[in-house]
Amino acid sequence: MELLKQRILKEGVCLQGNILKVDSFLNHQIDPQLTVAMSKELAKRFADIKIDKVLTIESSGIAIALAVALEVGTRLVFARKNISALMDEEYFSCPIYSFTKKESKLAWVKKKYLQKGETVLIVDDFLADGSAVLGLCNIVEQAGCKVGGIGVAIEKSFLSGAKKIKKAGYRLESLTRIKSLEDERIEFM
Amino acid sequence: MELLKQRILKEGVCLQGNILKVDSFLNHQIDPQLTVAMSKELAKRFADIKIDKVLTIESSGIAIALAVALEVGTRLVFARKNISALMDEEYFSCPIYSFTKKESKLAWVKKKYLQKGETVLIVDDFLADGSAVLGLCNIVEQAGCKVGGIGVAIEKSFLSGAKKIKKAGYRLESLTRIKSLEDERIEFM
Repeated sequence: MELLKQRILKEGVCLQGNILKVDSFLNHQIDPQLTVAMSKELAKRFADIKIDKVLTIESSGIAIALAVALEVGTRLVFARKNISALMDEEYFSCPIYSFTKKESKLAWVKKKYLQKGETVLIVDDFLADGSAVLGLCNIVEQAGCKVGGIGVAIEKSFLSGAKKIKKAGYRLESLTRIKSLEDERIEFM
Repeated sequence: MELLKQRILKEGVCLQGNILKVDSFLNHQIDPQLTVAMSKELAKRFADIKIDKVLTIESSGIAIALAVALEVGTRLVFARKNISALMDEEYFSCPIYSFTKKESKLAWVKKKYLQKGETVLIVDDFLADGSAVLGLCNIVEQAGCKVGGIGVAIEKSFLSGAKKIKKAGYRLESLTRIKSLEDERIEFM
């Protein structure tokens, strides 16, 4: 997606450890117009399947996933990562390792918000080693739902996530694919 | 806001400790159509001021705040609550106590995303004791910005938040105001 690519080139900052900071428009400050443009593109790419629900994980995935859910006309569910006083019911869960935070957390979704037989589109801002997305796929399958596909804004193609997702047989659509962040330079596929 | 009120009556669940669960449409599963309707109503109520930025806090505030930012045509910033590998720059911060989680966390916003002189609209899903919202007001003022107002979906009017906000001189617009959750019954103002 050219618009996103240009924005990454203009505002993205590379940090040591293969980290790409895009917090001026994607995951701290958010550009709502760009978010809508990204959601339209993801909805278009998955226009051939009937989506019953959009699933993401807090926090950075919520904005783009909400816009996608609006676009395709479904509910959004965001998996939570923190235990809460509200967590009184049965839930599906899966441990998820955060690439940027270097820690593992339990992601959970209340059982009643994923109904058996639904086709779920998983949406997230970043795909790195795939831990978050594959954890969500695991949750979807625990629920007896089908992973309709996975849509992400930025794929770090030099990490293992995309490969793992394809090996597991899921359909992946990435709006941009980054080949390398070496020497603090952003190179696209 | 009648639409939200009806939805709360239909799907809201009261729990001990003055907790109102609305996670079927507001903060776990999200109804995007309702989110847009709420954002239009908040934008309408603040139509008399020029808003430069919308500010919320992760995670539950992001969906409604994104919709408001789209409606008023500004950027959205969401304050983060977790220390991250991306947190390498100067930031404004304020401790925030979570009513539902019974714990205090540092909320932070990168300095460059709040520019001196901007008028900021603070948006959140819930107003309980006001800790989150008043923490965001504190951050806005640290930045030399002005709090244009505070817009929330659900105000628990029997708790201290609304009173504290008004006492501090801020303008508050709540889409619904709950008078009591006693005996596990939802009573509106």
